[in-house]
Formats: sequence, C-alpha cells, structure tokens
Amino acid sequence: MSARPLIVVAGVGAGKGTGGSTARLFAKEGYRVALIARGADSLNALAAEINQAGGEAAAFPIPEYSYKGVLVVFDSILSHTWPSPGATELRVALWNASAGAFKNFLDVTEEDIQNSVNLNVVASFAFSRRAVLAFKENTLDANGARGTLLFTGATAAIRGNTWTSAFAAGKFGLRALSHSLAKEFGKENIHVAHAIIDGVLKRERHGSKPLEEGQEEANVRLNPDAIAKTYKHLVEQDRSSWSWEIDLRPAHEKW
Amino acid sequence: MSARPLIVVAGVGAGKGTGGSTARLFAKEGYRVALIARGADSLNALAAEINQAGGEAAAFPIPEYSYKGVLVVFDSILSHTWPSPGATELRVALWNASAGAFKNFLDVTEEDIQNSVNLNVVASFAFSRRAVLAFKENTLDANGARGTLLFTGATAAIRGNTWTSAFAAGKFGLRALSHSLAKEFGKENIHVAHAIIDGVLKRERHGSKPLEEGQEEANVRLNPDAIAKTYKHLVEQDRSSWSWEIDLRPAHEKW
Amino acid sequence: MSARPLIVVAGVGAGKGTGGSTARLFAKEGYRVALIARGADSLNALAAEINQAGGEAAAFPIPEYSYKGVLVVFDSILSHTWPSPGATELRVALWNASAGAFKNFLDVTEEDIQNSVNLNVVASFAFSRRAVLAFKENTLDANGARGTLLFTGATAAIRGNTWTSAFAAGKFGLRALSHSLAKEFGKENIHVAHAIIDGVLKRERHGSKPLEEGQEEANVRLNPDAIAKTYKHLVEQDRSSWSWEIDLRPAHEKW
Amino acid sequence: MSARPLIVVAGVGAGKGTGGSTARLFAKEGYRVALIARGADSLNALAAEINQAGGEAAAFPIPEYSYKGVLVVFDSILSHTWPSPGATELRVALWNASAGAFKNFLDVTEEDIQNSVNLNVVASFAFSRRAVLAFKENTLDANGARGTLLFTGATAAIRGNTWTSAFAAGKFGLRALSHSLAKEFGKENIHVAHAIIDGVLKRERHGSKPLEEGQEEANVRLNPDAIAKTYKHLVEQDRSSWSWEIDLRPAHEKW
Repeated sequence: MSARPLIVVAGVGAGKGTGGSTARLFAKEGYRVALIARGADSLNALAAEINQAGGEAAAFPIPEYSYKGVLVVFDSILSHTWPSPGATELRVALWNASAGAFKNFLDVTEEDIQNSVNLNVVASFAFSRRAVLAFKENTLDANGARGTLLFTGATAAIRGNTWTSAFAAGKFGLRALSHSLAKEFGKENIHVAHAIIDGVLKRERHGSKPLEEGQEEANVRLNPDAIAKTYKHLVEQDRSSWSWEIDLRPAHEKW
Repeated sequence: MSARPLIVVAGVGAGKGTGGSTARLFAKEGYRVALIARGADSLNALAAEINQAGGEAAAFPIPEYSYKGVLVVFDSILSHTWPSPGATELRVALWNASAGAFKNFLDVTEEDIQNSVNLNVVASFAFSRRAVLAFKENTLDANGARGTLLFTGATAAIRGNTWTSAFAAGKFGLRALSHSLAKEFGKENIHVAHAIIDGVLKRERHGSKPLEEGQEEANVRLNPDAIAKTYKHLVEQDRSSWSWEIDLRPAHEKW
Repeated sequence: MSARPLIVVAGVGAGKGTGGSTARLFAKEGYRVALIARGADSLNALAAEINQAGGEAAAFPIPEYSYKGVLVVFDSILSHTWPSPGATELRVALWNASAGAFKNFLDVTEEDIQNSVNLNVVASFAFSRRAVLAFKENTLDANGARGTLLFTGATAAIRGNTWTSAFAAGKFGLRALSHSLAKEFGKENIHVAHAIIDGVLKRERHGSKPLEEGQEEANVRLNPDAIAKTYKHLVEQDRSSWSWEIDLRPAHEKW
Repeated sequence: MSARPLIVVAGVGAGKGTGGSTARLFAKEGYRVALIARGADSLNALAAEINQAGGEAAAFPIPEYSYKGVLVVFDSILSHTWPSPGATELRVALWNASAGAFKNFLDVTEEDIQNSVNLNVVASFAFSRRAVLAFKENTLDANGARGTLLFTGATAAIRGNTWTSAFAAGKFGLRALSHSLAKEFGKENIHVAHAIIDGVLKRERHGSKPLEEGQEEANVRLNPDAIAKTYKHLVEQDRSSWSWEIDLRPAHEKW
C-alpha cells in the first residue's frame, strides 16, 4: 500500500486566505494536511472543518516564525501520528507566512525590518531545509517529482515602493531563496515555484478599500480558492515542464 | 443550446510540438480546433488524426505569416462551416508560430531579421487583432473570461545571446505585445498570457544534441503534452487570479 | 599622428534632443561628428552650429531608416572626406532613432507596427553591423575599447503599456539586439550599452503636458545635455568595468 | 564660505577594493572621507594614506555591522571634528559592506543566513536612515541634489544561484531597499543608486581563480578604480537624469 501524501502549509492565518484555501483543496485531493500558524484557535477551527468534511488535518501552532521554531514545528509534523492507518510522505510544502510593515521609510523601525527578514527570509530557510531534506527521501511520484516547494510571493518581491521598503526587502529575499533552490534541487527532481500575488485578496477585504461603484469583486480581488488551484497545477506539472515563477492578478487589476 | 468553443492554433508545424499537443488536448475537452500552419500536408494529417479520435478539427494552411495572410486565414476560420451542428465561439487563440535565425550577429542577413520581426511581431499583431475583436463579442464564460490569448515565448524573449540576436529581437517584441494586451484587455475580461519555454522540446530531438550518458529524456526535454496542460490551466484560471507570464523548463535544465 | 575619433549619431531629429546634445558634447571633446536624420534642413543647421563653434560636423540626411538606407548612409560617412587634415576612426556610434505609434491596440494599423519594427529593429541591425565592422578595424583606445555602440531605449523597452504596443514591440526588440551584441562583442573589446530613458525630455515640451503648479522643469523633465554626459561616461568607462544598461529619469519622476 | 562635502564609505575592508578606491577618488575631488570597516588597522592605514596624499580622511572602526552599531558609528562621523577649518556637509554615502556564505543550500547554517540579512539588509536600513536624514538638511548642490546614496550590489542581487542562496537573499533585499528609497526620496532631490557588480574584482585575486592562458587582467577583472569613477559619475549626474541602476562587468565577462 502506498504512502499517503502530506502537505505542510505554513502561514494559515485565520484560515480565510491562500493558506486555508490550499489546505482545503489538497485535503479534498487526498492529502494529509499539516497546518502551521501563530494563532492556535483559528488553526484548530480550520483543522476541525477539514476533518469534518472528510479530510485529514492537524494543527501545529507555532509561537513565532523563528529559524528554530520552524525546525521544531516541522519535526513535530514529520513525526506526527495520523489517526488513519498508513504511512505518510511529505510531498508538498507551502511557505505562505509573511510579515511586513507598510510605512514610509523613516517610520520603519529596527524591529520592523528585523521582523521582516527574520520571518520572510531566515525562517523560510529553515522551512525549506526541512522540506528539501524530507523530499530527498522520496521516490519519484507519477509526475516525476520527489516533492514540490511553493512560495507565496508578492509584487513587493520584484518592486520596491515608497511604503514597502521593509516588506519588499523580505519578499525580494524570499524570491532569491526560491531561485537558488529551484536551480539547485531541480536536478534532484524537487520542484520549487514562486508565485507573485499581485493584488488584494478577497478575504482581506476587511481593512482594504471598499469596491468602487460598478466594480465586481471577482474582477478586482484575488480569490484564494483560485490561487490554490494554480498551486495544485504547479504541483501536478510534469517534470519535463516545470515553472519556477508565475504571476497572479485580478482581471481588472491596473498594473 | 450553448455555442461550441473554438480554439485557433497558429504555428502547428508538423504537429509534433506545442501547437499539435495543444490542439489534441483542447479537442478532447470539446473544443473545435482550427489549425494554422504553412505546410498543408502535415496540417491535414493532424486534422484527420483529431477527427478520427472523435474531435473536430479543420486545417487552414497559410502561404506565409504576413499581416494580411493572417487576417485572411483568421477570417476564413471565423466563417468556417463546421460539419457538426451548433454555433461556434472563439474562446482560445494560441500564437505558437515562430521564426528565428540562430547565427552570430555578423552572419544575420537583412532577410533574417526582417523575417523574424515580420512573423514574430507584425503577424502576431494581426493574429491578436482578430482574436481580441472576436473575444469582445463573447459573454463571460464560467471562469469569467471572454477569451484567452496565449503566446508561446522562449528564453530569447527575456535574454539576448551571442547567436540569437535576430530571434531574440522578434521574441522580445512578441513579449512586449503580450504585456500591452494583458494590461489593456484584462479590463474587458480578456485573458492574455505569455509562456517562456526555456529548453529543448522532446519532439525537436532531430537536430538537437543527443542525450548525455545517464540523462532521462523526461528530465531534460520539454514534453509538448505537458506544455499543453499548462496552457489548459491558464485558460481555466478564474478571472480573479490570472497569470500573464509563466516559465516552463525541464527539471534538470541548467539555468 | 593619431587618427581623429568619429562619432556617428543616428536620430538627430530637429537637433534639440538627445542626438543633438550628444553631437555637441562629443564635438567639444574633439570628435568628428556625422549626423543622420530624415530632415536635411535641421540637420544642416546643427552641423553648421557645431562647425561655427569650432567643432567638425557633417550632415548625412537619410530618406528613410530602412536597412539598405542605413547601410548606404553609413558607408558614405565612412568614406567622407573631412575638411581638416588627418585620418578618421569611428569610435562611437549612437542609435537614437525611434519610431512609435501611441494608440490603443485596436487603433494600431499594419503600417504602424511595420514601421516600428522596421526602424527600431531592422534598421538598427544595419546600423550595428556597420558600427561593429568598423570597430573591429580599430586598435584599443586608452580605455581598452575598440569602439562603443550606444542605444537610446525607453521605458517601453522593458514594459508594455495599454497605448504602447507598437512602440514597445520595437523598443523591446532593440534592447534584445543590444543584449546580444554586448555579449558577443564584449570579448572583442567592443562596448555596447543601452540606456532606458524613463520620462519626458525637456525639449519635447511641445506637445507634452505643461508643468504642474510648483514643478520645476529641472526636476521633472530629462535634460538631453545631461543624457549626453552619461553617454560620454559610458564611452569613457574602463574595459574592466563596462555597463550594458543604465536607466535615466528625472529626480521627481513617479515610477 | 561653503561647507566641505563629506563622503561616508561603509565596507572599506582592507582598502584594496571598491570602498578604498571610492574613498581615494572622492578625497582627490575635495571630499572629506569617513571610512567604516571592521578592521581598525587597515582602516587607519587607508586614512593615513589619504591624509598623506593631501586628502582628509578619518577612520571609524565598527565592531560589527548591526543596526545599532551602524547608527552609533554614523553619529560619531556626523559629530566628528575635522582638523582643517570649515563646516562639513554629508553629500555622499556609499554602502559597500557585504556578507555572504557561498555554499550549497544544505550547508547554509542559521548563522549564515542570519548574518547575511543582518548585515546586507538590517544594517543597511540603519545606514540609509542616517544618510537620508542628513541629506534632508542640505540645500541643493550644483547638480540639484541634496545627497547621493550609493549601494554596491552584485549579480546575486538579481539572480539566485546554486551556491549563493544566503548571499542572494541578502543582496536581493538590499536592492529592494534601494528601489524603495529611490522612489520615495527622489522627490526630495535625494539620489539613490544601485550598482550591479557582475564579476570578480582585481584586488580579490587572492583566492579567486588564476587568469587563464591568454587572458589580460584588465579584460576579465573589475578594477575598483574604474568602479569608483562610475560612482563619481552617478554622484555628478544632473537631477533631470538620474540613474537608479547600472551594471558593471569586465569586457570579456561571459554573461
């Protein structure tokens, strides 16, 4: 009997964004789902929701996204005993955690920039390390991969702006990591991809600008369920034709 | 009864590459398929193959990819009477035609560079014009699009090299067109995407370097069937989360 | 006695933009200056101005920037007999000619896009060919170059926009050419550089938007004399540290 | 009597690279020079060399490039009493410090990546903060700038590679910072520029590959004196035509 595939999703937040949608979609596809976020309550709620829908999910709250914190939580995922029978193989890892300070440069504090690079870059190195090491133990799947490592990027990964210096510094760094990893581990059939999310998410509406007169939300806000479908496509790409980078934005986005 | 969707594929060549694979895949999905290429024989053979497999394809040979030649062939596609009953709506157009001269710069002739820009840029403007005008007549499909216009790009679309000046000049220009179109017509729910094919295709093996000792083809050569699957994903993306650009390369490609 | 250096400037226009400023600056530096433009009158006026200021310039009107037209005018420059004594060596060539149609995509005609690629790409191949062949005859100058080939680019060389499809297709193509040339001929000590001019020129004010309340022209419009100084710097760079690409924009430009 | 301009150079190292060359060149141009590096001995030697050559330099050793460490050393520079009479105005600041670990990804330690982002990103935020705040106090100089902030980048700022993950993550982040700053402070006539150094420096020869048969060093290794000249050009650009980014590589570099 073959092992059940496992996806680890870091950065689930309140479960209403890209991390949550990806977790739900892969659960439906038969993946075991390990959820990482800072808030235990919403994490447990999402795991419960997935389990009640017939999936298999477990919550792994993390006190903070430090290098060591990520190693510890990842190791506890890898040694987790799943209720249903059968071995588990890590096949997909999504780094969707993010930290940023959106301010003019002179308002950015030492803490702001330190937090941005610590989470966006240093912690993602730990996450990637564990994912790559686990993938290397796998045989090739039907599509010729040992595993897929996905990174949620942003426009700020390719462009600095007047109020994004701290965020962009972290997101540029994360993109650099994904570039190095894609080149180094493609040769070992580990697929690494980076998605540039260019726009505002539907679920982020709270706090974002209200829709303008005549705007339809589906045209102007990214639906995290749609992002998850593209992530699924990336995971299912044949090893002969892998993507490192893809951009995603609403049809009516001005860019 | 709703209209049957139509895909137009320009640049089918001998039917063994990206154009042919895309035509076959969309035929299986229920699309009518209009095939454009310079060589009538292989074009007819591919149409026959698709029809025998239960699809519906028609061949539209083009004498050369000139601006007017493309308009004429596109118009004959749009007014084509399909054997099976039911209206037709153009929903996908793939510009997969390509011309290049791979030589050192001083060996590039006037004809080489003129051919490159005439096909890669001028003719693609004609193709895009007809596609956009047809898409504008459509209502939104289930994914919120009036139509999807796909362009097959290459590494030479983002990097010149010592032996690619003529090819790169054309492919850069095509990428520019796709960028402008994506920005202008996204607002009208027309999806425009550009794929950077970075590597050698499986079917292009003739004339390309033999595999090295220990190499597996699936790791080092792009399978056009896999490219077609990504094209299908792009067509099926939800309007909330469209990609303009994606790269595709073999797992073991050095880049 | 060493040869007098020659600069060829294509795209002088009315002499009030980048081409004219570059011609004047290099004339002051002791270069012979060959001026190419379509309008003979303003060309002769600029040559006269430079000659009266103690420089040495000659006007070479071109009926149109076709491939053959450029070869013919370049050959007449290379065989020109200059009034003052002494041999001449082509050391710098600036391609500053440009053609574009700024319209929404559906208003772009076949002629618009054909003109854009013919001038921006095909003609620039001819110009580059003659420049490279002439440079190859030179010995190394004091900075270690046989010659410098400069291209005036634009924002539209790296970004398509909703009203720039035809222009961008040409400018992307020109940038591709410069990339290929820089890589191929750097090894022969021929320096190739591409400048992305991002903004509106001071001399283009006619037809451009008037300054807004409180704006100072020097902060918001590129001064072609300043661009010329950067071109001079590129020509004077030491072969150990050559630039291929540089961007130039006004201090207050929003980008 | 007008104030003497001051340049601060962080990352002088042993004085034989880009930082040292820039310090020497600006000293000759009449700038007071504040030198920052970790090693006091070589720093003092460079200051002594510049002073003996008729310039005016002072050494500011820094224990480590932490955020607070950079603030402290910058403040001590700004309150420094220079031996010669006359006020001082900070006009140029060069961030040339760099940290990297060149290893395969799985050999990169937590310390490696933390050091890279702490120096390349976090410390550069502190440096930029002090520079920008000081520049804001200045009036416009003859070229229309309040000051120029220069960053030494690398190929690893735009491309990850298999052995550069930690270095690239830092250098991408630094480039992001420079992008944000250029956009935010251009409007206040503060010029921010980022140089992509693509190749090996002449003075770094120790430890780098020996020249190949037939290679001339001037064709294949960047001369830091040449880099310094381009930095001087950036500082002297007119505000109407500022560069954010420029690449620099040896004529014979393969890229």
